[in-house]
Amino acid sequence: MSVRVGILGATGAVGQRFIQLLDDHPTFELAAVTASASSVGKPYREAAKWRVDTAIPDDVADMEVRATDPEAIADANVDLLFSSLPSGVATEVEPAFLQEGYVVSSNSSNDRMAPDVPLTIPEINPEHLGLIDVQRDERGWDGALVKNPNCSTITMVPTLAALDSFGLESVHVSTLQAVSGAGYSGVTSMEIIDNAIPHIGGEEEKMETESRKLLGAFDGAGIELHDADVVASCNRIPTLDGHLENVFAALSEDPSPAEVRAAMRDLPSADLHSSPDQLIKVFDDENPDRPQPRLDRTYAGGMGVVAGGVQTTYEGVAYNCLAHNTIRGAAGASVLNGELLVKEGYV
Amino acid sequence: MSVRVGILGATGAVGQRFIQLLDDHPTFELAAVTASASSVGKPYREAAKWRVDTAIPDDVADMEVRATDPEAIADANVDLLFSSLPSGVATEVEPAFLQEGYVVSSNSSNDRMAPDVPLTIPEINPEHLGLIDVQRDERGWDGALVKNPNCSTITMVPTLAALDSFGLESVHVSTLQAVSGAGYSGVTSMEIIDNAIPHIGGEEEKMETESRKLLGAFDGAGIELHDADVVASCNRIPTLDGHLENVFAALSEDPSPAEVRAAMRDLPSADLHSSPDQLIKVFDDENPDRPQPRLDRTYAGGMGVVAGGVQTTYEGVAYNCLAHNTIRGAAGASVLNGELLVKEGYV
Amino acid sequence: MSVRVGILGATGAVGQRFIQLLDDHPTFELAAVTASASSVGKPYREAAKWRVDTAIPDDVADMEVRATDPEAIADANVDLLFSSLPSGVATEVEPAFLQEGYVVSSNSSNDRMAPDVPLTIPEINPEHLGLIDVQRDERGWDGALVKNPNCSTITMVPTLAALDSFGLESVHVSTLQAVSGAGYSGVTSMEIIDNAIPHIGGEEEKMETESRKLLGAFDGAGIELHDADVVASCNRIPTLDGHLENVFAALSEDPSPAEVRAAMRDLPSADLHSSPDQLIKVFDDENPDRPQPRLDRTYAGGMGVVAGGVQTTYEGVAYNCLAHNTIRGAAGASVLNGELLVKEGYV
Amino acid sequence: MSVRVGILGATGAVGQRFIQLLDDHPTFELAAVTASASSVGKPYREAAKWRVDTAIPDDVADMEVRATDPEAIADANVDLLFSSLPSGVATEVEPAFLQEGYVVSSNSSNDRMAPDVPLTIPEINPEHLGLIDVQRDERGWDGALVKNPNCSTITMVPTLAALDSFGLESVHVSTLQAVSGAGYSGVTSMEIIDNAIPHIGGEEEKMETESRKLLGAFDGAGIELHDADVVASCNRIPTLDGHLENVFAALSEDPSPAEVRAAMRDLPSADLHSSPDQLIKVFDDENPDRPQPRLDRTYAGGMGVVAGGVQTTYEGVAYNCLAHNTIRGAAGASVLNGELLVKEGYV
Repeated sequence: MSVRVGILGATGAVGQRFIQLLDDHPTFELAAVTASASSVGKPYREAAKWRVDTAIPDDVADMEVRATDPEAIADANVDLLFSSLPSGVATEVEPAFLQEGYVVSSNSSNDRMAPDVPLTIPEINPEHLGLIDVQRDERGWDGALVKNPNCSTITMVPTLAALDSFGLESVHVSTLQAVSGAGYSGVTSMEIIDNAIPHIGGEEEKMETESRKLLGAFDGAGIELHDADVVASCNRIPTLDGHLENVFAALSEDPSPAEVRAAMRDLPSADLHSSPDQLIKVFDDENPDRPQPRLDRTYAGGMGVVAGGVQTTYEGVAYNCLAHNTIRGAAGASVLNGELLVKEGYV
Repeated sequence: MSVRVGILGATGAVGQRFIQLLDDHPTFELAAVTASASSVGKPYREAAKWRVDTAIPDDVADMEVRATDPEAIADANVDLLFSSLPSGVATEVEPAFLQEGYVVSSNSSNDRMAPDVPLTIPEINPEHLGLIDVQRDERGWDGALVKNPNCSTITMVPTLAALDSFGLESVHVSTLQAVSGAGYSGVTSMEIIDNAIPHIGGEEEKMETESRKLLGAFDGAGIELHDADVVASCNRIPTLDGHLENVFAALSEDPSPAEVRAAMRDLPSADLHSSPDQLIKVFDDENPDRPQPRLDRTYAGGMGVVAGGVQTTYEGVAYNCLAHNTIRGAAGASVLNGELLVKEGYV
Repeated sequence: MSVRVGILGATGAVGQRFIQLLDDHPTFELAAVTASASSVGKPYREAAKWRVDTAIPDDVADMEVRATDPEAIADANVDLLFSSLPSGVATEVEPAFLQEGYVVSSNSSNDRMAPDVPLTIPEINPEHLGLIDVQRDERGWDGALVKNPNCSTITMVPTLAALDSFGLESVHVSTLQAVSGAGYSGVTSMEIIDNAIPHIGGEEEKMETESRKLLGAFDGAGIELHDADVVASCNRIPTLDGHLENVFAALSEDPSPAEVRAAMRDLPSADLHSSPDQLIKVFDDENPDRPQPRLDRTYAGGMGVVAGGVQTTYEGVAYNCLAHNTIRGAAGASVLNGELLVKEGYV
Repeated sequence: MSVRVGILGATGAVGQRFIQLLDDHPTFELAAVTASASSVGKPYREAAKWRVDTAIPDDVADMEVRATDPEAIADANVDLLFSSLPSGVATEVEPAFLQEGYVVSSNSSNDRMAPDVPLTIPEINPEHLGLIDVQRDERGWDGALVKNPNCSTITMVPTLAALDSFGLESVHVSTLQAVSGAGYSGVTSMEIIDNAIPHIGGEEEKMETESRKLLGAFDGAGIELHDADVVASCNRIPTLDGHLENVFAALSEDPSPAEVRAAMRDLPSADLHSSPDQLIKVFDDENPDRPQPRLDRTYAGGMGVVAGGVQTTYEGVAYNCLAHNTIRGAAGASVLNGELLVKEGYV
């Protein structure tokens, strides 16, 4: 079975990752790419300044860039849209596609906390997809909007889900985030060489709120947020890709490091093409200096999470985790949500 | 008044910082430098591979390097010794100098947690120097050994001391540490370019134990450790100098960010040459991205602490702090302790 | 004697360096700062995002930013203007000030190769200032426009001037240039971390043409370009400040490395406040790995040139040289030209 | 046909690359690995600190490390040895294997300029292998020793070979070399962050001599060095992998940039497994900022050369070239020479 897909905002950094990940995808066939007005009508190879480390697929290189509105893609017969629009643009444009009945798997940060929008990681909370029915009722559209979380959130939440069996009570987390998380021009070299920046605008709040939604319970009408307090401090450091995070979790139970590692390793995978066989790779005590961004960010093609350094503390555990921020943390997350939407019959 | 001083282990990275800081010091006059066997007898300029960013002082350049034993420095008439020996060497060698009656202000990590050895930051716990009398009784020597804490500890503890008035209950801290903290050859370029390492051997334990001793109470016979739990995760990142730390503190009281900032700013300075007029510089909300290592590590000539990003959390506060790890965190800390020893009459 | 000066384009990276260098200048008193329309009327502290490593001087912080036109600065009674405008803006705006009789020492790249505009390094070709009379005749203004060369040119030319006594015939040069040369946002972190870029638009041509003008002879009516061929390859690398250059020079004579080093060291200084006592510091054979950007860029407060690695080749010599690109290579160069203009009576 | 091979010095950085490249090689079957005394007898996985970005092949992980002498590998029935020993060790040890009749393809730098030792790049000078007969006569051994050039030499020589049809007269070259070229611990982070080092001991001489041998003519008895003068300046910069080089070549003819690019692209490949279909990829004028280390070092699996920025100069051409220093510049070069030895019947 083949599903025809389109990418809204296909020329940017995340858009390029979409194209890379969709190349040779067994189910998805890329049929339309959109971008802003200055690119419309150009072949993709001219419109995009391609910077991904594999070549532009030949068929995409010649594809004509369309405008980002439903009419412009009407003849492409697309069943599923991936969105990597800037959130300001997405707020205005995504509803138009949803009104036309499109299913949209979006990486844009708008509406992630909207009560009727599922925010999903397929291995963690696939049942939240049920919110789509609520959404259709409330919004009165035939389409379906699904969001994936922010890159720093998605790195941590699978490990928290594993801990939840031990009674997760609260979380403190410090992040060491790669510059690619801010987009190609987001961090200048003069800002970050021989330096670190202990603040990323809005990031801390995203981690604190999105985590509780992802770990929350769907009761058929809405999501009850998980009641764990989450406190985040976010830092930018001079790495290219891969967000590393130090997590301190308070637990009601008292598991050993070995039990924590086992819980992380045993987290079930999703039966989807882009989901790794083992979602979380966990380093033991003999490798206390792992995960490291450059060595571990490509685990499972960048779709896995890597953890390590598990220690018990006076109130629970401390450990480190890492994921590739532009694959598992952005385009790959949306593609995986797209696979879930197909599997669950929404496409 | 001039005090003749010597440096044990003068050719290494911290030894060079000692020489830089002692140049033009108003009280201390450098009279002897020691190093390992291969350097003994050479002029300092030949023995040291000088890498500090100011030139070798002329008089030091021509000074003959001595062996690191009491006999070899006997004719130098030194009243105070600074030690930057590797801890393994220091464990063996420092006692010999103490037996001979020398006062030693040491940056080496051995014996920091010994019950009769004062571990001091002059602005924070100068009264701990009273332990010297206990030490002399127990060890039967006329000398005096004072230690300064580890570089990552010293960055955080002044801010915790400021918080203690609000009832400090527990601390979680993540560090983003500069490569110079591992010595000149401690971190290879292949390890750290485009990378971060979430583990520094022994560092976490040092932060957890030293902090509680520094904040503890001296009762005339010993130090009662502060009862706050401290949990640390330590990371190495690609910066040259300056340790940045994310601190999460649980407090029994409920201060506002403004009250926390005021408490930090109002921490009293020590009346000593190398102590800044204001120990902790604090950035307000309009600069949430400060402190940053490259921009803030030279505050007060590298002897100050810089804090910022103060936020309230469900259990207390979160904030960031930074200090220059090889000045305030190493050589400068020992020099400052030396100044305290002189002021208090131990030299 | 005090000279009242203004800065055209005072809020950018070079503008900030001007303010830093003019603070405590013995002759120049800063009386006016201009910037683009969005900054006009604001106090400087609000208009500029200050990023230099020293604090904004208090008096400048409160100075009101003026528009960049002669009328807006008329009441400031300024005798000399420094310009760090973008070259497109400078092309339009500088003539207006010159028509009004202002003397302008400009770092902007426009008009550097104009036949009647002196391009000067005070230690190298101060006599080129005589072109001002030609310029006034041709342009019909009372003002005077002097330019300093591009940062990569100025790094190399003092060493070439020293070599000229040995019959300079041709030059090949490769540059390793710091990111600050492109301005604060000129090079993104994603472009340059773990990378190098072997192209800087327009830079190679600037080095090839400006060098020949700087080394050329002034015959009272114009500059005869030096006849040495100059071929440059320019690279951007991940350093913050300091351009390092590998120079290969063909010579008609056959000097030894020691003679070349002596010629560089003996190059006369200019008798001006900002000119170093020794313009070129030269490392001998025992330090073949110098100059290095981080270790040597602050020689003489960033106003010096540092050379080393002198070797003879089949056709002449090879060596390396380095200068601080935003001090000697930009703002400092203009200030020094301003000092020359005062000394020579043009102000 | 399968050839059993061994690696002398298998645990180091280049040794690990050999193992990575030999995994799944269609002809070579790894049968023995040797290392220094402290590793002998251990399984490889314990003896090596594995740092390559792919996992250790399972069969190699369990292989027992042998001593580096002929007796210790006698029962492995190896037909071909790859050597990545330190040159000091190789000088002593390689002859023992050659006396025993082994064919050795060596990356070690000793003996590269010996008159009877072929120094080969299979695409450039395969006929130099004829020196083996001279070598056997002179040395009186049945074995055969072949060397590949230094990593910085091998990056440039294919492009020079393409230029030779235009009458190559002299070469000036500046290198921007990655830290991996110095081995895992060769460059400390404190040396290179925010810095560059304009000297690599011995590297310049290697480029100057090896290039002339590689481009020289084999007359049946020896190699007549190419008569082009080669002058090199070598720099270390903060990149992980990939040496970038600026080349200035004087030519007797006057080709256009297009002709130079065509000559580079048309250089014949070798009909060998590890030789790329197109040895030199060449960027046109529309990409003047390429090649770049991070974007281009993996061309052809790291076995290709990438060139660009071709410009004419007063005496010939200037251009940039790049290759992966630990693949094409080290282990991959030796493997390719091994394939040539098999093809030519020496194994």
